Amino acid sequence: MIGIGIIGCGYWGPNLVRNFSSVSGAKVIMISDLKFERLSALASLYPSVKTTTNYYEMLKDPSINAVAIATPVSTHFEIAMESIKAGKHVFIEKPMTLNSEQGERLIEAANKANLVLLVDHTFIYTGAVRKIKELVDNKELGKIYYYDSMRVNLGLFQHDVNVVWDLAVHDISIMDYVLGYRPVAVSATGMSHVHGSPENVAYMTLFFDSALIAHINVSWLSPVKLRQTLIAGSKKMVVYDDLEPSEKIKVYDAGITLNNNPDSVHQMLIGYRSGDMWAPQYSRTEALRTEAVHFINCIEGKESPLTDGAMGLRMVKVLEGTIASMREKGHLVPLNL
Amino acid sequence: MIGIGIIGCGYWGPNLVRNFSSVSGAKVIMISDLKFERLSALASLYPSVKTTTNYYEMLKDPSINAVAIATPVSTHFEIAMESIKAGKHVFIEKPMTLNSEQGERLIEAANKANLVLLVDHTFIYTGAVRKIKELVDNKELGKIYYYDSMRVNLGLFQHDVNVVWDLAVHDISIMDYVLGYRPVAVSATGMSHVHGSPENVAYMTLFFDSALIAHINVSWLSPVKLRQTLIAGSKKMVVYDDLEPSEKIKVYDAGITLNNNPDSVHQMLIGYRSGDMWAPQYSRTEALRTEAVHFINCIEGKESPLTDGAMGLRMVKVLEGTIASMREKGHLVPLNL
Amino acid sequence: MIGIGIIGCGYWGPNLVRNFSSVSGAKVIMISDLKFERLSALASLYPSVKTTTNYYEMLKDPSINAVAIATPVSTHFEIAMESIKAGKHVFIEKPMTLNSEQGERLIEAANKANLVLLVDHTFIYTGAVRKIKELVDNKELGKIYYYDSMRVNLGLFQHDVNVVWDLAVHDISIMDYVLGYRPVAVSATGMSHVHGSPENVAYMTLFFDSALIAHINVSWLSPVKLRQTLIAGSKKMVVYDDLEPSEKIKVYDAGITLNNNPDSVHQMLIGYRSGDMWAPQYSRTEALRTEAVHFINCIEGKESPLTDGAMGLRMVKVLEGTIASMREKGHLVPLNL
Amino acid sequence: MIGIGIIGCGYWGPNLVRNFSSVSGAKVIMISDLKFERLSALASLYPSVKTTTNYYEMLKDPSINAVAIATPVSTHFEIAMESIKAGKHVFIEKPMTLNSEQGERLIEAANKANLVLLVDHTFIYTGAVRKIKELVDNKELGKIYYYDSMRVNLGLFQHDVNVVWDLAVHDISIMDYVLGYRPVAVSATGMSHVHGSPENVAYMTLFFDSALIAHINVSWLSPVKLRQTLIAGSKKMVVYDDLEPSEKIKVYDAGITLNNNPDSVHQMLIGYRSGDMWAPQYSRTEALRTEAVHFINCIEGKESPLTDGAMGLRMVKVLEGTIASMREKGHLVPLNL
Repeated sequence: MIGIGIIGCGYWGPNLVRNFSSVSGAKVIMISDLKFERLSALASLYPSVKTTTNYYEMLKDPSINAVAIATPVSTHFEIAMESIKAGKHVFIEKPMTLNSEQGERLIEAANKANLVLLVDHTFIYTGAVRKIKELVDNKELGKIYYYDSMRVNLGLFQHDVNVVWDLAVHDISIMDYVLGYRPVAVSATGMSHVHGSPENVAYMTLFFDSALIAHINVSWLSPVKLRQTLIAGSKKMVVYDDLEPSEKIKVYDAGITLNNNPDSVHQMLIGYRSGDMWAPQYSRTEALRTEAVHFINCIEGKESPLTDGAMGLRMVKVLEGTIASMREKGHLVPLNL
Repeated sequence: MIGIGIIGCGYWGPNLVRNFSSVSGAKVIMISDLKFERLSALASLYPSVKTTTNYYEMLKDPSINAVAIATPVSTHFEIAMESIKAGKHVFIEKPMTLNSEQGERLIEAANKANLVLLVDHTFIYTGAVRKIKELVDNKELGKIYYYDSMRVNLGLFQHDVNVVWDLAVHDISIMDYVLGYRPVAVSATGMSHVHGSPENVAYMTLFFDSALIAHINVSWLSPVKLRQTLIAGSKKMVVYDDLEPSEKIKVYDAGITLNNNPDSVHQMLIGYRSGDMWAPQYSRTEALRTEAVHFINCIEGKESPLTDGAMGLRMVKVLEGTIASMREKGHLVPLNL
Repeated sequence: MIGIGIIGCGYWGPNLVRNFSSVSGAKVIMISDLKFERLSALASLYPSVKTTTNYYEMLKDPSINAVAIATPVSTHFEIAMESIKAGKHVFIEKPMTLNSEQGERLIEAANKANLVLLVDHTFIYTGAVRKIKELVDNKELGKIYYYDSMRVNLGLFQHDVNVVWDLAVHDISIMDYVLGYRPVAVSATGMSHVHGSPENVAYMTLFFDSALIAHINVSWLSPVKLRQTLIAGSKKMVVYDDLEPSEKIKVYDAGITLNNNPDSVHQMLIGYRSGDMWAPQYSRTEALRTEAVHFINCIEGKESPLTDGAMGLRMVKVLEGTIASMREKGHLVPLNL
Repeated sequence: MIGIGIIGCGYWGPNLVRNFSSVSGAKVIMISDLKFERLSALASLYPSVKTTTNYYEMLKDPSINAVAIATPVSTHFEIAMESIKAGKHVFIEKPMTLNSEQGERLIEAANKANLVLLVDHTFIYTGAVRKIKELVDNKELGKIYYYDSMRVNLGLFQHDVNVVWDLAVHDISIMDYVLGYRPVAVSATGMSHVHGSPENVAYMTLFFDSALIAHINVSWLSPVKLRQTLIAGSKKMVVYDDLEPSEKIKVYDAGITLNNNPDSVHQMLIGYRSGDMWAPQYSRTEALRTEAVHFINCIEGKESPLTDGAMGLRMVKVLEGTIASMREKGHLVPLNL
C-alpha cells in the first residue's frame, strides 16, 4: 500500500484526493493547504484523511511514500525539492517549475534519490489523445505536415501566470506526446490588455527540422470556448475537438499527394484525395485516474513515467522560449530540447 | 447607360457578367478571354454580348465606358493601366497589383484621368460584414481589443500565389473596413509543403498603436473548411462564421471591465459580464450585385468608391509586409499605411 | 430545522442526498435502501447520516419531518401512503403513481393530514424552462400554435416501464407548466422491439380546445441523443435544446400573420416575418437544488407546491391515456384533466 | 436524339430545362407555361428553345418524343393523359396524381401505349439516399427496426395542397426505396392553423408486417429548418441529415442485441454495443441530372424506370391513407399497396 499526501487543495487538489482515494494499492493519508476551510470541507468528505496547514508534517510522516503537489507554480520547486529530500516520490502539477534551471535540479535530485518524478500533463492520459497517438504511431496519417491548435475562452485573467502557461502548456504537451518530434525554434506574439499584467492572448509558431509546422492560438478574450486541433498528414487528416461530447476525434481520408514530376516545371502536380470520415472510439476513463494508477505502478517499479521530469522540462523550455519571443514581438528563438 | 467590358472569364468572370447584366443603368457590351471555349460558353447564355480574345478591341470600343478585370494578378497592372489610358473606368480584382509600387502608379493614373478605380474586395459588400461594421461604428462593442480570424480549407495549391494572397487578403480587407484602424507592424510565419512552391499555411499577427491585437490563420491544409472570426470589445463580443447558413453573426453580451485599483497590487480587479446572445439580421443581397450597383453609381458621380485604390494599396502593403516577415520566420516588419 | 429521510438510493437518490444536505434549514437524518452496498457507499461520503434497509425505521423517527421517495414507481403509492400516515411530508419521484386512482388517494390523504405532497418533475425547476414560461406568460410568443418535442437516445431498455413513462413524462410536464393549457385528447402510437417487453419507441399527438397541436417523440432506439423542442407562436418562435451547453433557448423573431382578406378567396394571405434571433440568459442553478429549497419552503408554509399532487396526477392521466391510445394504434382517447 | 418538351415553368420547370439541356442524347425543343413572362425569361437563357402558352402545340410537334410535366398536381392527370394519347413519353412531378384512381388509369394508358412513365421522386436519385440504400441492401444495418424522419421549416402555406403532399411525400418515397418494405397501415394526425386551408403540420406513423415502425414529422411552422432521419437496425444505425454540407450520412456502430434467455424471465438481456462512427462518401452529382439521364436511357430501352408509375401510385395511396387517418385524428387506416 502506497501512502499518499496531497499538498494544495485549491482547484485541482480535490480531484487528486478523489482519484488517489479510488486507486487500489494507494491510500491518501494526509492533505495540506494553507486555508483551513478547504481542509475541513475535504475532511468531511474523507473523514479518515489527516489534515495539516504545514506540509512538513507530511514529509515527516513515514507512512507517506509519495506526495502530489498542486500548489501555485512559483512554489513547485521548493516543495518538490523538500519532498525529494524527505524521500518522497513526487507527482507535480504542470508546468513543472518556473524555469528550466529549477527543472534540471529537480530531475537531478530525483534521479540521485532514485525517486519517481511525474509531471501532471493530464491530457496525455485521455483516451482521445492516446487514440491520436496510436493513429500517428501506426502511420495512418502518413508524414505529418501541420499541427494547428486553438484553445480559447472567456477566461479568468490570472495575475501570476500568462495565458501561455495556463492554456498553451496543454497543446505543447499533447503535441510533444503525439508527434514525437521536438521543435527547434519558436516565434510567438501576444498581448496583455491590462496594464502591468501578463499576456491574455498569445500565438505561437513552432518550427521543426522538417516541413512540419505547428501553431498554437490561446486566449482568455474569446466570447466562445473552442478546443480545436487540426492535424494534417500526407495520408489522412484529423480534427480533434475536445468539446464534442461523444465524437472528439474525426479522421478524414483526405490528403495531398505530391508528384514532383521534373517535366512539369510550370505546373504543380498535386493530387487531392477526399473520402470517408471516421470517428473512432476511445477510452472514456477519467484521465486523472489513469494517471494515478500509472504513478502507483511507477513507484512499484512496474512502469516508467510517461510524463517524466525530462518531458516536464521540455515543456518549461518551450514556454521560456515562447515568452522570450513574445517579448520581442515574434523574433525567432531557438529551442534546445 | 454605362457600357461594360469584362476582361477574364475564368472562375470569377462569369459572376461579373451575370451581375453587371442585371444592374439597371449598365449593359455588358463585350467579354474577353484568351480561351475561346470560355467565351463561347458565356455567349450561349448571353447571346447579345460580343466576344474577343484580344482585350484591346474592348479598349478601342467607344460604347464601353468601364472594364472589369478578372485576370491573374500578375497581369492586373498592365491591363488596368492600358484601360485607364484608353479612358475606361476600372473595376479590378483583389489583390489590386503584384506590389505597392504598381498600385501607387495605378492610383495616380486614375486620379489624373479622373476615372473611377474600384478594387473588388467583395466581402466588404456583404450584409454580414456591413452589420459588424455598424455594430463597431455604433460603439456597441466598446473599445476593440482582439480580432482573431481563421480561414482554412483543403485548398487547391496554387503555383503563382501563396495562401496569404489567396485567403488572408479577405481578412485583411474585412478588418481594415470594420475596425478602421491601420496596423503598424506585422509578424508572420508560414510554410510550403511542396518544394519550390509558395506557402500553403500562414499565420499573421498584426500590431496597432493600441492594445488591439489581430491574428489571421490561413491554410490550404485543413481537412475541414472553417471561416471563423472572433472580435472582442470592452462591452460586447462578436463571433462571425461565414459558413453558418442563416446566423452568421452572433453578438455576445460579454466583456471585461478593467478596474485599475491602485490599492490592490496583488489582485487583478477585472469584472466579468456574461449575458444574452443575439443574432441580428442582415441583408442577404448578393455582395457582388451590391458592389456592381455601387461601381455604376461611382461612375455616375453619385457615390465615392468604398474599396478605392488607396484601400487596395493598403492591402497590398500588408501582404508585402507579411511575406517579408514570413521569409524571416516571424521577424517584425513595420507597415507604413 | 427540517429533518429529511431519503428512501431509495439507486440512480437518483444520491442526488437527493447531496442537494438536501446543502440546503440551509434542512438536514438529512437517515437514508434507506434494500441494497446494503449503496448505503455504505453513501455513508462514507456522509458519515453523520444514519442508514437502514427498512424504511419503517425512518417513519418511526420523530426527528424526520419529511421523506423523499426515489424508489421504482410500482412502490410509490405504498411508501408514500405509509409516510403520510406516519405524518411525514412527501417529496416523490415522477411519475407519481402507477395509475390515477392511486394518485387521487394520495392527494386526498395528504390533504386530510395537512402535509406537503410534491412530485419531482425536475425540469420545471430548471432555469431554461422557467425562462420559456416567462416568455409565454409575457405574451412574447403571441398565441401558441405548435409544440413539438423530440427526446431520443440509445437507451437502456427497461423491463418495468415503457419509454413514455421514462422520457415523455418530462415533455408532458414541461408543456403543462409552460403552456398552461390542458390537452383534451391524445392519439399515440408506439412499438416494442423485444417480445413481451414495454414499448421502446412512442409518438404522441395531443389535441387541445384550440388550434394548438402538440407532439412528443420519444425513443430508446436512436443512435444519437436529441433533446429538441420547437414552440411556434403567432409572434415569435422558440427552439429549446437541452443539450446545448450554453445557449439552450433561442427565440426567433419569426412568425406568421394571417390576413383573411375576404376578396382573395383563392389566395392565402399569410405574411412571413423573419428577423433577429436572441438567446436569453437563464439561471444555471441546479434544478434539484431549487426544488429542494422550494420543498422546505412549502413545509415551512412560505410557498405552495408548484408541482403538487394535482399536477402529478394530470401527468399520470396523460400517460394512462397515451398508453390506451398506443395499444389501439392511434385511436383517439379523450383526457379529462 | 430525344426531343423534350417541358410543360410548366414555375419553380421547378427551369431546373428541368437546365438539366435536360445538358444531357447528351436529349434536346429541349419547346417549353410551355400559361405565364408569358416566365417563357421570355427562359427564352433569353435558351435562345434556341421554342415557347408556347398552349401545350397542345407541343403534343402536335413530331420532333418532341417526351414531355416533362411540372404543373400543379391538380392538372397532372389531364396533361399526362393527353401526352400519352399523343404518343409522348412522360416525366411527371410528384405526387403523380390527385388520387390513386387517376394514377391507375395513367399507368394503364402508358402500358398500353408502350411509353415510359417516370415519376420525379428526385431524392431517390441523390448520392446520399443511394448510399443508404446500399448499406441496407448489403445488410450492414442488420434488421431494420426504426425509421424516424423530421422535415420541418418555416414554410410557405400553400392553399391547394397540405404539408403532407408537399413535404412528407419525400420521406415516404425515400423510405419506400431504401427499406423495400411496404407499410400496411397508417395513423396520422395534423392541424391547420388557417381556417379553411389545408393542414400545415402533420405526423404519420406507418406500421408494417414486422416490428418495424416508421414515423414522419412534417411542418411549415418550425422556426428552424430540419431534415433529419434516424434509421436503427439490429447491427448499425444511420443518421441522415440532408442539411449537412459534406457529411450527410453518419453510420454508428451501435445497436441492440436481444438475448431472449428463457431462464431470466424478470431480466431483459439486451446487450448494447457502441463503437465507431463512420461518414461514407457518396456521389455529389445533381440528382435531377442523374434522373434526366435515367429517363433518356429508359426511353432508349437501356434501363427500366426506378421511380415508375407503380411506385408513384404507392406514394399516392400512402398520402390518401394519411389524409383519411388525419381527418379522423389518428384512426388507423389500412393501406393496400
